[in-house]
Amino acid sequence: MAETRGGSFDVVIIGSGPGGYVAAIRAGQLGLRTAIVEKDDKLGGTCLWRGCIPTKALLHNAYLYEQILNAKKLGIEVEGVKLNFPEVMKNKDLVLKRLGAGIGFLMKKNKVQVFTGMGTIRRPGLVEVAGADKAVTLLETKNTIIATGSEAKVFPGMEPDGKGIITNIEALTLGAIPKSLVVIGAGAVGVEFASIYRSYGGEVTIVEMLDQVLPLEDEEIAKELRKLFEKRGIKIHTGTKTESIKAAKGGYDVKLGGKSSETVTAEKVLVAVGRTPNTAKLGLENTKVKVERGFIQVDGLMQTAEPGLYAIGDVVPTPLLAHVASAEGILAVEHIKGLDVHPINYERNPSVTYCDPQVASVGLTEKKARERGLDIKVGKFPFMALAKPRIEHEEDGFVKIVADAKYGEILGVHILHAKAGDLIPEAVAVLNGEMTVEALAHTIHPHPTLSEAIMEAAHAIYGSPIHL
Amino acid sequence: MAETRGGSFDVVIIGSGPGGYVAAIRAGQLGLRTAIVEKDDKLGGTCLWRGCIPTKALLHNAYLYEQILNAKKLGIEVEGVKLNFPEVMKNKDLVLKRLGAGIGFLMKKNKVQVFTGMGTIRRPGLVEVAGADKAVTLLETKNTIIATGSEAKVFPGMEPDGKGIITNIEALTLGAIPKSLVVIGAGAVGVEFASIYRSYGGEVTIVEMLDQVLPLEDEEIAKELRKLFEKRGIKIHTGTKTESIKAAKGGYDVKLGGKSSETVTAEKVLVAVGRTPNTAKLGLENTKVKVERGFIQVDGLMQTAEPGLYAIGDVVPTPLLAHVASAEGILAVEHIKGLDVHPINYERNPSVTYCDPQVASVGLTEKKARERGLDIKVGKFPFMALAKPRIEHEEDGFVKIVADAKYGEILGVHILHAKAGDLIPEAVAVLNGEMTVEALAHTIHPHPTLSEAIMEAAHAIYGSPIHL
Repeated sequence: MAETRGGSFDVVIIGSGPGGYVAAIRAGQLGLRTAIVEKDDKLGGTCLWRGCIPTKALLHNAYLYEQILNAKKLGIEVEGVKLNFPEVMKNKDLVLKRLGAGIGFLMKKNKVQVFTGMGTIRRPGLVEVAGADKAVTLLETKNTIIATGSEAKVFPGMEPDGKGIITNIEALTLGAIPKSLVVIGAGAVGVEFASIYRSYGGEVTIVEMLDQVLPLEDEEIAKELRKLFEKRGIKIHTGTKTESIKAAKGGYDVKLGGKSSETVTAEKVLVAVGRTPNTAKLGLENTKVKVERGFIQVDGLMQTAEPGLYAIGDVVPTPLLAHVASAEGILAVEHIKGLDVHPINYERNPSVTYCDPQVASVGLTEKKARERGLDIKVGKFPFMALAKPRIEHEEDGFVKIVADAKYGEILGVHILHAKAGDLIPEAVAVLNGEMTVEALAHTIHPHPTLSEAIMEAAHAIYGSPIHL
Repeated sequence: MAETRGGSFDVVIIGSGPGGYVAAIRAGQLGLRTAIVEKDDKLGGTCLWRGCIPTKALLHNAYLYEQILNAKKLGIEVEGVKLNFPEVMKNKDLVLKRLGAGIGFLMKKNKVQVFTGMGTIRRPGLVEVAGADKAVTLLETKNTIIATGSEAKVFPGMEPDGKGIITNIEALTLGAIPKSLVVIGAGAVGVEFASIYRSYGGEVTIVEMLDQVLPLEDEEIAKELRKLFEKRGIKIHTGTKTESIKAAKGGYDVKLGGKSSETVTAEKVLVAVGRTPNTAKLGLENTKVKVERGFIQVDGLMQTAEPGLYAIGDVVPTPLLAHVASAEGILAVEHIKGLDVHPINYERNPSVTYCDPQVASVGLTEKKARERGLDIKVGKFPFMALAKPRIEHEEDGFVKIVADAKYGEILGVHILHAKAGDLIPEAVAVLNGEMTVEALAHTIHPHPTLSEAIMEAAHAIYGSPIHL
């Protein structure tokens, strides 16, 4: 086995997802000698190739498709609307390809050296890269950032079979729209694919072990999403386990247990029961790194127990979200550079599920705030009472604000609406600015926009929204 | 002429646009005995019936129409896309009707008495309402709020002729799409109608006396909008006067002068050269109110020189925008009630032009900041470098941030993008929170969303956006 020296670096980053590649760019900007190691033949990781981006491309497509099917009430007549599924996939792949090329360009621009192969830590300060041809390149480095991400969790009996039992990966490359689909798990991934394939005309059933869809989101928001999903014809079983998946005529029999005990037959079964951090084959045993339930333990500045070794993104026990990974990557690099940095306040981190309608939130849910014993007030406002949602024929959903009762500080904002993802950044700024309900209610919001619902929800905390 | 007493009130509001009706709701909520006077047979004013709302309904329709025409590249095949213009108008009217009914409901709910007729001030504390039947109702009141709005300004030779010379009113009720249209004035109104009728297939020419379209917006933003409009096939003449409009075969000859001196022939001519406050027949001569160039002079709490008499919205010399009128209405009413109130900071007031692509802004333009002698830094970021705009095939436009060079306080945010209006509320919160560039750059924005461009523009101020 040939070993070559790949050079000596200030920082080597293992993994080129939105944690790793963003960290690499920032490191390059700060003048650090930087290398990035990627096992795939292309940069971008799960987010770009198997996660956020292709999913959102399909979701956008599904959204537009439904808009077109309903365009008649707006006075736009169309005939023979037809989804050309191979073309849908081709468009999606084109978007990915362009974005992937963009990352390659950014690596060059920021003088980041790219190494293709499996990165492992031979010892602190030495990363080995095993290429496809088994050739090993050794990278000496002052600092290392682990950003190897996660992959779909699979329980025994649910393993992808190369046919109809699938994960997010296969769900993004299907050759045809499944006539029927069982989605196991009602987290963001499951709910997004359910939304896509329902829009495309599939019969979709969601099975969730916990008592609500999107278990991390506010209860009322989740309850209303469920209602709207059911209105779209999606069948939902919560508090329900998947007992077994058996091949059957035309697909699979999925036997349920718990609140629901029926057997659902479907062409495809999507397993979306969570993610597992990719920390197994990294050589962590050669370091002081502590791992708990697969996750690498870090401090507020993303440092592991091994000096000079950082971990960011899905491998650490913080929210498994691309933008969190990016922020952690920037934080780690700026700390390496010796800049004045601060730990991330994860309670001001937004989360968006891009199903139809979308769910977006930041801060505390009502339940979490009450569990902490906080004295809170809650304000809610439905979109249907405003002009813009009526103009756009998107009246479903509401905004919910959780605020401190005494001082009025806003603690959480939860939004259910077709365009919730576009609205939540305002709420993030509001939380970061420690704005009070009073100030938000008196902040001028442009008319007519969807954002007026946020202002009205603030008014609602004191019992007096204008348009209700 | 019969005179009847209509009762005695804490506050009488003249005009039921978004200034007046919102003020009335807030007054009712605060327990004030409230009356509202409206000359039309329906509540809502210009915004609802002749302005923001119907325009945005057509703009949304035009947007969706273009999306459908371009759906093929997303893998959605449609045949025979046809705009049924009477149906487009019918859908728009239905939206207005529902919203109008909503205002009526809100008046009842908040115990606001509605009087239909021309409201004038006979003397301070006495408002007379002249109904269609000439019957006069007298309202005694402790406080009066003038919220009579504005109407299209028309210069001699440009008067609407009931045929092809039109204002915003007629442009919203056309029986057919004009084959060709000259729009005089490139403010928000002109630019929005140009956008609508261009999407619908009309040949559109814009004529503007000043040197840029949207003269109040940032120069660079306006320049890029112009470029994109021209790419859409809209002809634009800036620095150009309209010398004359003469009836000609199939429409009108519009003779231009200035930078451009050609004669443009078009089926319709839309006059959108500004707005005139409706302050002429209000009986202001019976009060101490001061009027300058048609506008009622007020202090920071919307008080005129006459005690107990307030003015809000388009009749006062603040930005002529619906949401400003609403905020002023709430302010006036809360002051009447004796609540602790503060003057509006108009420099944190957002503005949105809903053309395609949209322009949205808040705070200082680069030019204005420099004129004030401020030491500033500017950061820009193009949407095309991000994932979400690529997914949505809406890559045009950019974000521009103007910030204080020394302390990094953000002074202005300017956005050009198809969905700029959805993005600007975050910027408003940022300005209100007096957030620094540093803080904004480190605020986690959900991925993938359009809002990432705002974060990147903050990074760009220090020369280091991530994705560029």
